[in-house]
Order: sequence, then C-alpha cells, then structure tokens
Amino acid sequence: MKCKRCRRKAEVHLRQHNSAFCRGCFVFFLQRQVQRAVEKQRMFTRDEEVLVAVSGGKDSLALWDILAELGFRTAGVHLALGIGAYSQASTEKTEAFARARGQRLITVRLEEEGVAIPTVVAATHRSACAACGIIKRHYFDRLAFEYGFPVLATGHNLDDEAARLLGNVLHWQVRHLAKQHPVMQSTHERFVRKVKPLFRISEYETAAYAFLRGIDYVVDECPNSVGATQLVYKDALNRLETVMSGTKLAFVQEFLRTGRQAFVGHSGGVPETCTRCGAPAFGSLCAFCGLLQEVEAKRQRRPAASSASETP
Amino acid sequence: MKCKRCRRKAEVHLRQHNSAFCRGCFVFFLQRQVQRAVEKQRMFTRDEEVLVAVSGGKDSLALWDILAELGFRTAGVHLALGIGAYSQASTEKTEAFARARGQRLITVRLEEEGVAIPTVVAATHRSACAACGIIKRHYFDRLAFEYGFPVLATGHNLDDEAARLLGNVLHWQVRHLAKQHPVMQSTHERFVRKVKPLFRISEYETAAYAFLRGIDYVVDECPNSVGATQLVYKDALNRLETVMSGTKLAFVQEFLRTGRQAFVGHSGGVPETCTRCGAPAFGSLCAFCGLLQEVEAKRQRRPAASSASETP
Repeated sequence: MKCKRCRRKAEVHLRQHNSAFCRGCFVFFLQRQVQRAVEKQRMFTRDEEVLVAVSGGKDSLALWDILAELGFRTAGVHLALGIGAYSQASTEKTEAFARARGQRLITVRLEEEGVAIPTVVAATHRSACAACGIIKRHYFDRLAFEYGFPVLATGHNLDDEAARLLGNVLHWQVRHLAKQHPVMQSTHERFVRKVKPLFRISEYETAAYAFLRGIDYVVDECPNSVGATQLVYKDALNRLETVMSGTKLAFVQEFLRTGRQAFVGHSGGVPETCTRCGAPAFGSLCAFCGLLQEVEAKRQRRPAASSASETP
Repeated sequence: MKCKRCRRKAEVHLRQHNSAFCRGCFVFFLQRQVQRAVEKQRMFTRDEEVLVAVSGGKDSLALWDILAELGFRTAGVHLALGIGAYSQASTEKTEAFARARGQRLITVRLEEEGVAIPTVVAATHRSACAACGIIKRHYFDRLAFEYGFPVLATGHNLDDEAARLLGNVLHWQVRHLAKQHPVMQSTHERFVRKVKPLFRISEYETAAYAFLRGIDYVVDECPNSVGATQLVYKDALNRLETVMSGTKLAFVQEFLRTGRQAFVGHSGGVPETCTRCGAPAFGSLCAFCGLLQEVEAKRQRRPAASSASETP
C-alpha cells in the first residue's frame, strides 16, 4: 500500500479512514487533524496559552508535542500521583520531555499534599480510579485557574471518549450525556474552559504518532487500572470495531451531531460554590472536599481506636 | 445451590437475578415474570385475544406456551419464509406445537405470495435480514388487522431488545430510540397494538424454559443470519454481561425508565397511508410495497435484457 499523500511506501494504515501514510506524512496528517478539531470546535485561539494536563503516557505527551509543533502557546501540568515506581517513571518522563523542548511544566506531588492515591484509597471506600479522577479534576481545574490559563487541554482520545459514552449510555446517565463534549465552556468563575483536542484520534494513532516522533512515554498501564470498567467498555468497542470498522468514530461523531441534542437541558444546571474551598460544587461540598473529609475522618478514628484497645 | 422457592436442588441458575430454581419452580417463576410484564405494561387484558407471531424457534414457542398456560386467549400466526430445509422444519414444528395444544394457527406461505425470501433477495440489493424484516412486519400487521385481533405479540427477548438498543445507540437512530418500547400502541387504523411480553426475559431463560417444558423447537439459527449485525451486538453485550452481570437488563430497564424520555417527540410523527396497499407508510409507499416494486422492476428487466443480448 502506498502513502495517500506522497505515494511512497506506507507505514501506518488507518482502517477507519481507509487510508495509509508514510512516516513523515502520517505525522503531518495527525497534526493537521488535531488543528482542524481545535479550529472547528473553537477550542482555543493562537492568542491563548493552553495548559496541557500531562500524565507521562502516550496520549498526553503526543498532545503536548502536537500543539507545540502546530505553534500554539503551551505549558504542562503534571500530578505525581504517588503510585510507586509507576508514578516515579511517569514524572521522570514528563519532566524529561518538558526539559528537552524547553517547555514550562508545573508539577504537584500529591504525597506532599497529603493525598497520594494509595493514602486516599486506604482511607476511603472509593476505588482507586474514582478517587484519582476526583483528585486530578480538582488539581487541574485549580492550577489552571490559579495560574491564569484560559483553557485546559487533556489527552482523552477517541477510544476514551467512545468508552465513556458507552458507559454513560449503558447506565443512561442522562446528566453525564448532556455534558459529554470535546469543549466544556466555563460554568463557574473558577472553572476554565476544558478541551479534548484528540477526541477524534484513536489510541492506535496516538501510539503510532508517539513512536514515530520518538517520544519517550510510560508504556505500562497504571497498576490500579487492572479490571477497570473503562477497559471492559474499550474491549467491547474494540470487538465491534474489528467487525465493523469505523464504529467508534461514528458512535462519538453521531452523538455530537444528533444524539446529544436530546439530552441538552438535562445537565443539572450550573454548579454552586464549595463552602470549604470555593471550587465549583454540586451540593455544599465539592467532590474533592468530600473526599478530604473522608480521609480526615479516618485519620481521627484511627488513634482513637488504638487507644481504646489499650483500655480494656 | 438450593431452589429459592422450595429449597430443593436448583437446576436453573439466574445470575442477573442472583437466584436459582428447581425445574418446576423455574417454570412457575418465568410464567409469573411474563404475567407481571403483561400487567405492569398493560399489554393486553384477559378479554382480548392475542395473536402470537411464531417462527418455530424457542422464543416465540415459549411465549405462546406461557401465554396459553397463563390462561390468556391466544392464536398463532406463522410465515413460511421459503428458506429451504430451515423454513420447512420451522413450519413443521410450529404446526405440530399448535396441533398438540389444540391452538388455532394462521400460516402464510411466502412462496405462494411470490415473496419467498430467496426470491426477494435475488431481485433486490437488500440483505436477507432487511428484506425478511420488512416482509414479516407487513404480513404480521396485515393478518392481525384482517383477522380482527386487537393485539400482536412477538417473542423478542431481553437479548434482542438490548442488541437492538445498542445498535440504535451506536448510530444514534433517534427516531428508532423514540419508538423502542415493549408496548407499541396503534398509530394508524390498520396497525394493531404490538407487544413484547418477553422483553425482560433473557435468551438463556427462554431456552431453559423451552427445554424444561419439552417444547420441540428449531435449534438451528437461520442460515442467512451468519455475520448478521444483530449477532455482533449480542456478542459485545454478552462480553459485558460476563464481566458485569446484569448489564443487559439494566441497559434496557434504565432506558425505559429514564433514557427514553429524552427522545420522546423525535419519533417522526404518525404514519400516513400507502397509496398502493393502504397499509401505514412513512412516505407515499409502505416499505413492503417499495420492496415489491423493486422485485417487479427486476422481473420486467430480465426478459428485456436477455432479448437484447440476442440482437447484437
């Protein structure tokens, strides 16, 4: 098969686009795909500095690389999650990436904040993925706001968005369906705009891009993700994709084009303000402060319980 | 494991209901489940005679058996599709079932009507499943109306409904989503009410019921169904069900409870009347007459083409 653009030998085959590219043209193709998504969905302009949430994995590093290569003004934000060697490698690779490209990187170590993922999981009944999601959202939102960025970009790809959509649909999470979109406008003075420039780019494509661009990313999955619901949805969608190529893209695109309209007005309205930290909240406490309260309650219970065991 | 009802040894295990039954109690349980669905969804009353669409497979024969055992007034309607040995066996088993139970059966042979499935498929570009669906719907609707039945019941089970829902969602078929319901009220003077009393009963349960009741049904799948889209959706849902028991039931139930509300008003309105046959139609011709026209056009083209080949 020949490269669609330059007719040289193709190295990357894209079944859902029914085309193939050589190395150089694939990199060009993918960058242009992202540029079009940014422009068509009006995610941000060249005047705005974009804060890219980077984990150290292929998707977020590819996103940062693409946006920087396209000439957008970017900075990175990284959370060191405190999940042993996995987190250490993630932080190292993220810092090396930023250093090599002279990009500004804001790093927050959750251990120093007292909310390393293992600590929080041990202190609450939440699953690691649920706790991690709440903490990440909180810090990304807060740092983007505090550092004055107008927009926060995440590396969610097509597979992520399709799996999330499938999960929302299987449980008919009408509120979540109303909100699922590659551009989330600010609904609170402390929320900045959130965008997903890779929402039409498959996991296979970001992996190929990262490989061809020589990006050194963490290949291992998070050790907590074993058996995660999201992976079960991805597996089901991959099976559908194998038999019916283009299923994921059509699922997400047609949702944005027609399906989503049905749910608009079911989003649960605009958020209020957390009485504890001032962040946006549905209810009196934001999800993060709710989690913190659980962790603190556990810390207070523990010494009390041990001293009780000493007095018979 | 012991029978939930009588504490004897259980023989049928129902994971999604987290229970198990002995033979006798399972039959009782399943019949009562169907009775509850009929009553709760107000499908029909004991005064109404129900026309059951029977293919000769496990679901439709189990449905007919259950409704008759529950004391509802029933008759069967069967279409001999003309698909070789498969159809012959289906018709024989359906007729034997009706005869053995002294039930009235209306049988229509599509070959005699000039629309046997292989004939129609050869004459059009439709897939066998698409053509068969149009023909079945047309004859079932027409026969129910012409014979004066107030309601038509089909054997669609939970797996069928979940697969259909998944297909509608993956393509965001908003009109179809608006219409998907176990009870379809009449929207045209020639449409009778259509109901699916098995919509909460899994394929595994109808198979177990048919086996335990000694129903002699056609075990083979239709030879045309190989690779059918519906089976791909069923496979994906079965994988989800394996990991997350209860997924299918929750998907369908929660759709009916909350998700479906979002689509009401997108159904495309009430049907008009087919200018050719008087049946309900969206457009000037009903789907069946559209199909007939294709078949007739092909018949007219064929002799013309062969005579043309004789004159160089």
